[in-house]
Amino acid sequence: MNSYKAPVKDMRFALLDVLDVEPIYQRIGAEQATRDIIEAVLEEGARFNESVLAPLNQSGDQEGCHFDKATGKVTTPKGFKEAYAQFVEGGWPGLTAPEQFGGQHLPESLGAAIKEMIDAANLAWGNYPLLSHGATEALKHHGEDWQQEVFLKPIVEGRWTGTMCLTEPHCGSDLGLLKTRAEPQADGTYAIHGTKIFITAGEHDLTENIVHLVLARLPDAPPGTKGISLFIVPKIRTAKDGTLGEPNALRCGSIEHKMGIHASATCVMNFDGAEGYLIGQPNKGLNAMFTMMNTARLAVGIQGLGLIDRAYQNALAYSRDRLQMRSLSGSKRPDKPADPLIVHPDIRRMLLTCKALGDGSRLLALHAALQVDLLERSPDEAERKKADELLGFLTPIVKACLTEWSVECTYHALQCFGGHGYVQEWGMEQLARDARITTIYEGTTGIQALDLLGRKVIQLQGAGLKHFLGLIVEFCSAQTKNAELVEFVAPLAQAAQDWQQLTMDIGKRLMENPEELGAASVDYLFYSGYVTLAYWWTRAVEAADRSGDKALAEQKRAVARFYFQRILPRTLSHASAIRSGAASLMALPEEAFAA
Amino acid sequence: MNSYKAPVKDMRFALLDVLDVEPIYQRIGAEQATRDIIEAVLEEGARFNESVLAPLNQSGDQEGCHFDKATGKVTTPKGFKEAYAQFVEGGWPGLTAPEQFGGQHLPESLGAAIKEMIDAANLAWGNYPLLSHGATEALKHHGEDWQQEVFLKPIVEGRWTGTMCLTEPHCGSDLGLLKTRAEPQADGTYAIHGTKIFITAGEHDLTENIVHLVLARLPDAPPGTKGISLFIVPKIRTAKDGTLGEPNALRCGSIEHKMGIHASATCVMNFDGAEGYLIGQPNKGLNAMFTMMNTARLAVGIQGLGLIDRAYQNALAYSRDRLQMRSLSGSKRPDKPADPLIVHPDIRRMLLTCKALGDGSRLLALHAALQVDLLERSPDEAERKKADELLGFLTPIVKACLTEWSVECTYHALQCFGGHGYVQEWGMEQLARDARITTIYEGTTGIQALDLLGRKVIQLQGAGLKHFLGLIVEFCSAQTKNAELVEFVAPLAQAAQDWQQLTMDIGKRLMENPEELGAASVDYLFYSGYVTLAYWWTRAVEAADRSGDKALAEQKRAVARFYFQRILPRTLSHASAIRSGAASLMALPEEAFAA
Repeated sequence: MNSYKAPVKDMRFALLDVLDVEPIYQRIGAEQATRDIIEAVLEEGARFNESVLAPLNQSGDQEGCHFDKATGKVTTPKGFKEAYAQFVEGGWPGLTAPEQFGGQHLPESLGAAIKEMIDAANLAWGNYPLLSHGATEALKHHGEDWQQEVFLKPIVEGRWTGTMCLTEPHCGSDLGLLKTRAEPQADGTYAIHGTKIFITAGEHDLTENIVHLVLARLPDAPPGTKGISLFIVPKIRTAKDGTLGEPNALRCGSIEHKMGIHASATCVMNFDGAEGYLIGQPNKGLNAMFTMMNTARLAVGIQGLGLIDRAYQNALAYSRDRLQMRSLSGSKRPDKPADPLIVHPDIRRMLLTCKALGDGSRLLALHAALQVDLLERSPDEAERKKADELLGFLTPIVKACLTEWSVECTYHALQCFGGHGYVQEWGMEQLARDARITTIYEGTTGIQALDLLGRKVIQLQGAGLKHFLGLIVEFCSAQTKNAELVEFVAPLAQAAQDWQQLTMDIGKRLMENPEELGAASVDYLFYSGYVTLAYWWTRAVEAADRSGDKALAEQKRAVARFYFQRILPRTLSHASAIRSGAASLMALPEEAFAA
Repeated sequence: MNSYKAPVKDMRFALLDVLDVEPIYQRIGAEQATRDIIEAVLEEGARFNESVLAPLNQSGDQEGCHFDKATGKVTTPKGFKEAYAQFVEGGWPGLTAPEQFGGQHLPESLGAAIKEMIDAANLAWGNYPLLSHGATEALKHHGEDWQQEVFLKPIVEGRWTGTMCLTEPHCGSDLGLLKTRAEPQADGTYAIHGTKIFITAGEHDLTENIVHLVLARLPDAPPGTKGISLFIVPKIRTAKDGTLGEPNALRCGSIEHKMGIHASATCVMNFDGAEGYLIGQPNKGLNAMFTMMNTARLAVGIQGLGLIDRAYQNALAYSRDRLQMRSLSGSKRPDKPADPLIVHPDIRRMLLTCKALGDGSRLLALHAALQVDLLERSPDEAERKKADELLGFLTPIVKACLTEWSVECTYHALQCFGGHGYVQEWGMEQLARDARITTIYEGTTGIQALDLLGRKVIQLQGAGLKHFLGLIVEFCSAQTKNAELVEFVAPLAQAAQDWQQLTMDIGKRLMENPEELGAASVDYLFYSGYVTLAYWWTRAVEAADRSGDKALAEQKRAVARFYFQRILPRTLSHASAIRSGAASLMALPEEAFAA
C-alpha cells in the first residue's frame, strides 16, 4: 500500500547541476566518479532499494525482531537476511570505503544519495549496515594496521557489521557518567565488563560476526569524559590473522519494545569480561568515537530526509486519487462525484511543506556530505580546513533539522490521509512512528543545538558559520543582476544579515549569563536551518534556470516561492523567542512546576 | 511507570476563581452546583480516574481489543468491563444529563473537567462513554418522546452506550457522498443498508445494547448533504416499551489496527436491513448530527487537553529525577554525579510549553463548556444567543488547537525522556500515538479551520469573534490601571487588534479569490488559538493575584511570561504565512508535484 520510487532525477539535479560535483570529484582524485558512473550508481541504487528493500518495510514493522532469551539470539524479520545478502552481492557495503580495504572509494556525497534511498525504502533495515559505516570511519582513522586488516576488511565486504556501544542505563547524553570497565590482560587485550543499552544492531542474524566499538574506562582512568577509552569487542573472538574463534563473553540481554523501527534490533548488551582491543590512545576514546558519531549524525539526518520523501510520495499519490469535496473556486472534475484532495489549498500547503523541506534538505545533506569528500581528499590544506569547519557546523543542522522536519512532514503526510492515515494498512503511521526516533538517537535535538551554538558557533568563533555566510554573500553578489532571481536573493541576503546579527546578540548576552546558551540553542538551530534552506532553494532555482529544463525551472521556482512565503517566516517566531532571553525559562522554581 | 494525578487544584482555580462559575450556576438554575458540590465532584472524579482508569491505560494499549470474526463480537482489554461497571455505579454517565431522564443535571462545564480526567487517565477507555454524551444530546434535542424514553434513559444510566455512524469507505470529511440507504417499512420503521467505517465503540462488551445513530438516505432523498437523514439503529431490537428483542441485522465486520488508542474499538459496521427509527425530520439528519458533532468536537478537544497534562506530569517527574549533565551556570547538585534534567534551559522550554499550553487550554475548554450551560439554561434569550455564537466560534478552536497542541506536547514530553521515551515501558510513546488520532477524528484540523474561518467568521459575519474580542477589550479596559498586569494587558490588547485587522484583510482578499479561504484557514486557526490563550493567561494571572494565594500568583505569572515571550510570537509566522496569500499554494500544477 505504501510504495517508493527513488528520486533519481532530483538527486542527479542536486549533485550534477546544483552542487556541480563533477569537476570537484576530478579535482580531489575521485576521477572514477564521472557523470556516467554517478548516474549508473543512482539508477542501480534505485532498482535495489525500490525492488528489494521497500517491499520489506511494512512486513518488517509488523513482524518485528524476535529475541530468544535462552540463546540471546535475535532473528530479523522475514526477508531481511536475503535482502542483506543481495546488498552485499551488489557491493553496496564498500561503496565509499577505501580501495585498500576492498571498497570502491566512491565519494561520500554519492554514498549519501544511496543512503537516502535505503532510509526511504526501509529505515529499520538500513540500521544494520548504518553503523558499519561509522565503524569503518573509526577503524580507518584510529585503528592499528592489524585491526584494520582483521576488522575493517570484513566490514567493508559486508561480511560483518559494526556497532557503537555508548549508552548505559544511567547515562545517555552525559557520557562522562559511564561505568563500563576495561581490565588490562597479560596478553595485551582487555576484559570488558558492563552493560550497554539502546545498542542498534547489537545482535542480529545477518552476518557471522559483529564488531562492537565499546566505550569503557581503564582502571586508572580520570573521572568524566577524559577517562574514556574505545575498544573493539567482536561478538566472535578473532585472532590477529582473522580466524574466528569461540564466542566472546558478551550477550544480548533483551531487545526493546519500541514505538517504531520494530525491525531494527535495539539491544541491551551485557559484556561479561569480553575480550577487547584498545583502539587509539588510552583515555582518548571520545575523540575516536566522535569520528563515528559525526558520520552517524549525518546518517541519521539523512534518515529524516528519506522519511520525508517517502511520506510525501505517498501523500501525493493519495491526494491525487482520493475524491473529497469540491474546490473552493468551483468544481475541477465535474465528471466525478467530488474533486481530488489536491485541489484544496490546505492539502497543498501540507504537500508543499513536505516537498519544500524534503528537496531543500537533500541539497543541504549532500552539500554536507561533499565536505566529507573535500576534507578527506582535497589536495589543498586550506580547502580541507574549510571543509572540516563547514562540516562541523553543518552536521548538527543536518542531524537535527532534517529529523525534526521528518517528524513534521510524516505528520502532514499522514494528515492528508485522514482516518486512513491512522490505520496500519496504508503505512503512513509507520513512517510517523519510525521518524520519532530520529530526533533522539545519536544525540537529541537539544544536544545538537548545544553542539551548534555552544561549540561550533561560540567556542570555535563561528568559523563554519562564516564560511556558510560567505557562500551566501558570494552567491548573492554574483546574482545581483539576475532579475529572475531577485525575489529570492533579496530576502536571502537579508536573512543572512539577520542571522549574523542574531548570532552576535546571543554572543553578547552569553557573556552575562551562561544559561542564555541553552535558552537560545534550539530556536537558533531551527533559525539556522531555515536560512540554510533558503540559500539552497535559491541555488536550486538558479541551477534549474541554467539547466534549460523549463518544466524543472518552473517547478523549482514555484516550490521556492512557497518556501520563502510560507516556511521561511518561521524564523520570525524563532528570533522573537531567542530575543526574549533566558529569564522566562529559568524563573519558575523547580518545585513550582507541579500544578 | 506512567502515573496520573488529576489537577484538581487547577480545575478549582479555573472554575471558581477565573471563570467564577458559582454565581453563574446560581443564575441559570444550576443551584445544586455549589462550591461544595463542585469540589466534591472533582475530588471524587480524581479518585475514580486515578485509581480505576489510569492503571488500565498501558495494559489496555498493550492488549488491545480482540475481534472474533466468527461472531462479530469485540472483547475489550482486561479490566475495562469492570471499570465501566464502577463508572456506572458512581453515577458518572448521567452527571450532566437532565433529571427527567435520570441524570444529575450538573453543569457541562463541571462535566468537562471530569471529562479531562477520564481522557488523561485512559483516553481509549474514555471513547466508550464519549459518544453516549453526543447521543444524549441528539436524542434530547431531536428525539420523539418514546425515543427519549426507550433509548435515552438507558444511556443516561450507563446501561447502554451510543455511537455516531457517519463515515463510509469513500466519504470522510465529505458527507454529501454517503450511500447508506434507509428503506421505509410498512410499520413505520426503516431498513438500513450500508457499510460504515471508523465507528468508535461500534461494538464492545461493556453494555448489553448499543444505540447507533446512523446517517443514511431515504429513497427519494435529494443528492448531497441535503438528502441525509438520521436514524436510531440499536444493536438489539428494542420495542417501544423498551423490552429487548432479537439482535438487529447489523454486525461488526472487523476492527482497525491503528497507530494508537488500541483499546478503543474502531469498527467497520455492516447494516444489512437493520431496523431503524427516523430521528428528527427527513433529510434534516445533518442538523441533528451536528448537535452530536459539536458536543463530540469539544470532547475531542478535551482529549487533547488530558493528554497534554498527563504527558507533562510524567515528563516533569522524569526531569526532576533523571541526572544528566551539569547546569550551564555551574553545578546545582554537587552532591550528585550530575544535575537533574530540569536545570537545563531547553528541558524547561519543553516542560513550560506543555504547562503553558495545557493550563491555558483548560481555561479555554472550560469557558467553551460554560457556553453550553448558558445556551441551555440561561433565562435570558440574549445571553443564550450570545453563548450560542461564542460556542460556535470556540468549538473549532478548542477541537483543533488542543489536539494539535497535544501532538506537540506529547512530542516534547517524550523528548525529555530521550531514548527511554521511545520504548513502551515508560508509557510516553503511547501518549504520542494516542494523541495522533485527535487531530483527525470528528473533523480534521483542516475541516475545523474551514468551519472557523469560512462558516463562523465569514458566513456568520464574525458574531462569535466579536463577542470574544469584546471580552478581551472589556477585560483590558478594566485592567488599565493594574500595574501588576500591564506587561500582559498591553500585548494582549495589541494582539486582539491585530487579530481583528488580519480577519478583515482575509475577508477582503476572499472577495477576489475564494481559494484564499483554504489558504488562510489553518494558519488563522492557530493564530486565533494563540491569541485566545493569551487572553486566558492574562485572566489567570489576574485571578491568581486576586486569590491571595501568593505562590499560585507567582507560578501563574511566571508561566504567563513564558507564554507571552516564547509561545505567542508564533503568531508572527502564522500572520506572515496568511498575508502571503493563496498564490504560492495554488501555482504548482498538479502534475508538477511529482519529482
